[in-house]
Amino acid sequence: MAKIGATSAGGVERLTLTDTDKQARDLFVKWLERLDLEVRIDEMGNIFGKRVGKNDALAPVMSGSHIDSQPKGGRFDGILGVMGSLEVLQTIDENNIKTMRPLVIVNWTNEEGSRFAPAMVGSGVWASALERDWVYSRIDRNGYLFVDELERIGYRGSVPARKWPVHAYYEYHIEQGPVLEREGMVVGAPKGIVCLHWYDIYLRGEANQVGPTPMAGRHDALCAAAEMILKVNILPEKTGGDLVATVGEIQNYPNSRNIIPDKIHFTVDIRSWDDRLAQQAWNSLRNSFEEIADRRGCPIRIEETWRVAHSRFDAQLVQRVLDAAQDLGYPALRMVSGAGHDASYMNQVAPTAMIFVPSIGGRSHVEVENTLWTDCEAGANVLLRSILKSAAEA
Amino acid sequence: MAKIGATSAGGVERLTLTDTDKQARDLFVKWLERLDLEVRIDEMGNIFGKRVGKNDALAPVMSGSHIDSQPKGGRFDGILGVMGSLEVLQTIDENNIKTMRPLVIVNWTNEEGSRFAPAMVGSGVWASALERDWVYSRIDRNGYLFVDELERIGYRGSVPARKWPVHAYYEYHIEQGPVLEREGMVVGAPKGIVCLHWYDIYLRGEANQVGPTPMAGRHDALCAAAEMILKVNILPEKTGGDLVATVGEIQNYPNSRNIIPDKIHFTVDIRSWDDRLAQQAWNSLRNSFEEIADRRGCPIRIEETWRVAHSRFDAQLVQRVLDAAQDLGYPALRMVSGAGHDASYMNQVAPTAMIFVPSIGGRSHVEVENTLWTDCEAGANVLLRSILKSAAEA
Repeated sequence: MAKIGATSAGGVERLTLTDTDKQARDLFVKWLERLDLEVRIDEMGNIFGKRVGKNDALAPVMSGSHIDSQPKGGRFDGILGVMGSLEVLQTIDENNIKTMRPLVIVNWTNEEGSRFAPAMVGSGVWASALERDWVYSRIDRNGYLFVDELERIGYRGSVPARKWPVHAYYEYHIEQGPVLEREGMVVGAPKGIVCLHWYDIYLRGEANQVGPTPMAGRHDALCAAAEMILKVNILPEKTGGDLVATVGEIQNYPNSRNIIPDKIHFTVDIRSWDDRLAQQAWNSLRNSFEEIADRRGCPIRIEETWRVAHSRFDAQLVQRVLDAAQDLGYPALRMVSGAGHDASYMNQVAPTAMIFVPSIGGRSHVEVENTLWTDCEAGANVLLRSILKSAAEA
Repeated sequence: MAKIGATSAGGVERLTLTDTDKQARDLFVKWLERLDLEVRIDEMGNIFGKRVGKNDALAPVMSGSHIDSQPKGGRFDGILGVMGSLEVLQTIDENNIKTMRPLVIVNWTNEEGSRFAPAMVGSGVWASALERDWVYSRIDRNGYLFVDELERIGYRGSVPARKWPVHAYYEYHIEQGPVLEREGMVVGAPKGIVCLHWYDIYLRGEANQVGPTPMAGRHDALCAAAEMILKVNILPEKTGGDLVATVGEIQNYPNSRNIIPDKIHFTVDIRSWDDRLAQQAWNSLRNSFEEIADRRGCPIRIEETWRVAHSRFDAQLVQRVLDAAQDLGYPALRMVSGAGHDASYMNQVAPTAMIFVPSIGGRSHVEVENTLWTDCEAGANVLLRSILKSAAEA
């Protein structure tokens, strides 16, 4: 799978709804069919593979993650949870196990959100947290429409993207942070996911030839943005708590070395376990932004692109993950997830838990992203045990 | 001419060595041929059109400017001096005037430097101030080589780009600043051009998923750049004098909203009439940059892309422009040019002067760039008189 969209530096670039995403989806569907699963593709391009249970009328146990990647991302983020679930189903098959509840494996569309913002729209629409038509109308940097690209790669299915009863949802994923490695743990069970705010900031300035234009009276949109970026960077220090705040993306226009910038777009990402802290931080940041824009004569437009409250997973399911790890002899840690996951939306629909394995050096969303194969195996074993346990429940 | 590369907002986009540049060059050459000029294209793509003089062995009087534009630039920058010279030659023709010295009209390649840095390379190589092969090897944002693009549009001529004796060089241009308009003047005669420094700054950071990566220990290249951009912006206030300093261009990688930026390129443009002040300002800026890079753990690489000392035009020729304006009844001002021009390199080869006309609102390098037609006519009349005077000199 990692060959599809492989980058020269050992990573993967498989942006959502691109040709590489399509190739990876085709391969995934082939593997689902090889396991004789009942494949369904919904109108969001989410791909489900169902294995019948002894009592097929019962709500299924679901697990999965996402195939899409960041630009120049790694070989583990997302896809580990898809391949791990596939491995679990194959293992169950090979051992001729017939579970009571049906099992469903899933690939959610556009988890990353780096091509079309926001992220996690496949699970979001399925869980009724986002509007399908709003997601359809999202536009990427080059002006392509989400729905057109979904159609183009042949994954705009006919099944409505609408939640159905699920008995339990597990998502197996790399940690994407430094905690497990630092603590010497093999498995992590997050008690939940931090809240997440995404903002899009648009600034206007006044373009002019840099040489003959005196400094006084300039309206330089890039300078206004630079001040704002530093405000974002010091925000966590100002608020205290577990908040993180980042500007990851910026576009500058006309982006010519001898023209004063007159148009800027940049993004803000704020996360915390404490929803109120994040909201207070944003309020104070917003005030700073408006003050800077006003002082520099650079009109500002702020789009509140996305907001997800912190999400506490099902305590019993989290404990089950920890127990499974203990039974198998893997050192395990109860923790928090700093990254958003489809599990966040699934948690609104069904009891949900995640299984984390260590990211070497805490690195992720980069080509050197890596996880030991022994750790990958450990995570998959914990997933197998957890799924079997849930699937046996009445 | 303004139809070639016309933008919807009334400007022009005719980046050097693109198809639109080629179209405009073809039209220019057609017009030169219509005037029966002897057309020569040199190995830099500079286009010369020569009108014979009564004493054709004498060094010619030259005038011209450039056809290329900024991205989303205006309809006057550069091209006014080309069309103005053409109008002068046509007027001389229509009046059956035979000048003693030959006259040469010129279009210099890549004055703007916004596609291939640095700027003014056509005149720079011709004046022996730049190396031809170094310019040939410059690469644009998309990886295209200067020499390949020159070849591709069919303007890599066979004549060596090497200076020859020139009796006087005049360049007619819009002011690109607010001074003439503010002072109620129609014609400006710059005593010279400010010095110009261009730097390219490259920063490395460490990419990571923004959510699970604690603030402490981050190496965010965009934050380092933001600090540096603000240092550039306050530099003129710190140094005093007539210095201006600008960051016009920035590239951020991977430029994804949930990845910490790990690679930045940005530009610095510093100008002053006082070479020493500019050098001191840069030294102090460089120290700030290194301190910031060090403190934030973001390795920095600084490329000193281009440096031109301030350039004092020929006093007698500048006076001639002022006299011509006075004779014609146009209010005229001795001033300084804050923008670089091919005249800067020509000044190293021959007595040189420029003729400025007002930019409405001081705006240039933008689509709304504009100059009154009556002012355009005034500038062309001053150019005609100045050329005739120089061409009559023994």
